[in-house]
Amino acid sequence: MKPLISLLTDFGIQDPYVAEMKAVILSICPDANIVDITHQVGKFNIRMGAFALATAAPHFPSRTIHLAVVDPGVGSNRRPIAIETNRSLYVGPDNGLLIPAASAEEIRHVYGITNISLMRNPISSTFHGRDVFSPVAANLALGLQLRKVGQEITDYVELSFAQAKYEDREFVCEVLHIDEFGNIITNINQKELNVLGYAKVIVRIGAKRFPARIVQTFSELRKGEIGILVGSRGLLEIVSSEANAATKLRVKIGDGLRVCGA
Amino acid sequence: MKPLISLLTDFGIQDPYVAEMKAVILSICPDANIVDITHQVGKFNIRMGAFALATAAPHFPSRTIHLAVVDPGVGSNRRPIAIETNRSLYVGPDNGLLIPAASAEEIRHVYGITNISLMRNPISSTFHGRDVFSPVAANLALGLQLRKVGQEITDYVELSFAQAKYEDREFVCEVLHIDEFGNIITNINQKELNVLGYAKVIVRIGAKRFPARIVQTFSELRKGEIGILVGSRGLLEIVSSEANAATKLRVKIGDGLRVCGA
Amino acid sequence: MKPLISLLTDFGIQDPYVAEMKAVILSICPDANIVDITHQVGKFNIRMGAFALATAAPHFPSRTIHLAVVDPGVGSNRRPIAIETNRSLYVGPDNGLLIPAASAEEIRHVYGITNISLMRNPISSTFHGRDVFSPVAANLALGLQLRKVGQEITDYVELSFAQAKYEDREFVCEVLHIDEFGNIITNINQKELNVLGYAKVIVRIGAKRFPARIVQTFSELRKGEIGILVGSRGLLEIVSSEANAATKLRVKIGDGLRVCGA
Repeated sequence: MKPLISLLTDFGIQDPYVAEMKAVILSICPDANIVDITHQVGKFNIRMGAFALATAAPHFPSRTIHLAVVDPGVGSNRRPIAIETNRSLYVGPDNGLLIPAASAEEIRHVYGITNISLMRNPISSTFHGRDVFSPVAANLALGLQLRKVGQEITDYVELSFAQAKYEDREFVCEVLHIDEFGNIITNINQKELNVLGYAKVIVRIGAKRFPARIVQTFSELRKGEIGILVGSRGLLEIVSSEANAATKLRVKIGDGLRVCGA
Repeated sequence: MKPLISLLTDFGIQDPYVAEMKAVILSICPDANIVDITHQVGKFNIRMGAFALATAAPHFPSRTIHLAVVDPGVGSNRRPIAIETNRSLYVGPDNGLLIPAASAEEIRHVYGITNISLMRNPISSTFHGRDVFSPVAANLALGLQLRKVGQEITDYVELSFAQAKYEDREFVCEVLHIDEFGNIITNINQKELNVLGYAKVIVRIGAKRFPARIVQTFSELRKGEIGILVGSRGLLEIVSSEANAATKLRVKIGDGLRVCGA
Repeated sequence: MKPLISLLTDFGIQDPYVAEMKAVILSICPDANIVDITHQVGKFNIRMGAFALATAAPHFPSRTIHLAVVDPGVGSNRRPIAIETNRSLYVGPDNGLLIPAASAEEIRHVYGITNISLMRNPISSTFHGRDVFSPVAANLALGLQLRKVGQEITDYVELSFAQAKYEDREFVCEVLHIDEFGNIITNINQKELNVLGYAKVIVRIGAKRFPARIVQTFSELRKGEIGILVGSRGLLEIVSSEANAATKLRVKIGDGLRVCGA
């Protein structure tokens, strides 16, 4: 079976940067099957990248090598790391980007990448995606043992998403992501739906209040009506039928909001 | 030969949704070769997706599995379907999206997909692209017989593009598509060029009239001049040389227009 | 090893044009591994395409077939060409697009593509990417000898990027590219850094002057500060830390600028 490498960056699709990474990978491991997760992560937005990676990773086959680069600290003393979990390998910068995805699979070992024989020579100071992370991922795809990349470390940078809290009969929650459809992905887990329980709820954003209806599918909503449903990631999403809920509610990623009974 | 799966959606390229579909496909059929047609179909725009699919499909090898998802009715009672034509297989929602491409190849059988052993468990109510269509396409790529997906049906949703009409010495036609260059793709077939026959014509949009010249290539036009030529899909296109014809003429997809002798 | 074909166009990602090219390639050479460099080259912008191709090509394995189409002259008498260099093959229009990448590898032979048995029949007058270049590239991927595509030529269209000049104690240079991060890629080679030598410099654009600091990495800059560093392509780049330098300096591709000691 061909080794599978997923790719996630904030490099966009106009410049040849992603192609340079793929070219480096295929030069080392011509059999690699490379799948793009996304390259449209907001520039330097580690949390947005971490969310996308954690959303996609569980669906990949086990033994996939996830190569992710959102790396405002490139060239500084931030370390390159590689992670082994119960089912996958992760390669990228030590800034939290890989952690939510890896943690969900249970982290076994984290290594600081220091083995320069695995890297390109010379290493540019601005593009470790091409010169450090890609050749390491390609070597792992060839079968290199993870511990060959460097020393095991435990003091890697953590990153986690806040959990919604239920207090005073309302959920205090956060916008984890807004997708291209305008669906607002909250940090309320689908298990909390029982706690919420109301067919009709109020979404509060600052002083503004939006009535919403808890539904199972988009099609239960009248066009433009606001609803809450369990999204494909198992989190509650505030949505609108064939309309952009985020525009209606004027929220952005990271905003806080509250959901309570109507 | 590796099974070939084409992918067309309105999911965009920022979110990890397309990657989740690819990950599910490769988990079931690691050998699948997946080719993106486009993921930039206008949100919920079934006709735009149907046009892109019908444009691309004839160029793929026979036995390609075309997986297309533009699915405003996801989670409702709209059926998932799979189609066998004389040369390809199609998988997607029963909303017309697949029909123009499949009809052009002659439809042999249409099945409603009901075999839940082929789907993911649980099935989300918002993402059948990942939980229903992808695993079915991947199983077909593994060699599953199409009739195993469910019952044959005949009452599937039809969709077709209007044919241009020639009446009172002018073509009454429609804008089927506007491409990224601003080329206006009409529903006038290249065979009608003989009927039209004039070197100079008038394009009428409401009360506005634009003189245009029938040419064979862009290079015959002066910069900014409006021309009509046979496009790569075999349909007449209203174009401009190194300029955006759609902006000049202020038309959009679906608009009606008329073409007559000058 | 599977033959590798890179793809670069100005076709964008909304229309099915790139997919049509891939479908044609895979119909002829099902084993081809196709890697996108970019399809977001500015429409008809040959220089921008040539820069992206020349940036990406050196990182691909030897024997890669680079298929590039930015082709305002499609359908005119501009020739289709194929180039053999010391390490790669190139296929595309004879308008300079392929030359900077090919020249950097040393051009061995250039052929005008005239062998119609390699092309699709009929050939559209607007889409040689699909009907001429893709089938030729796919045949080369199958092992066709390059000289079978047509006659060797020497009068192909040249294209090169201006070199920065050092005169009167300042560099007179040009913006070769602005990437999605807003990094301004100049035509000053990293070797010139010694000549420049100052820790602090002035970037002059017309009458405006911007102080900048020569650094090795982004992380040495205070947020928003302007710096100059050696980019991943070996050229000096004017950058800003987690900010868009091109917006700050209000420059665009092709603009001239000057860099001198502070």
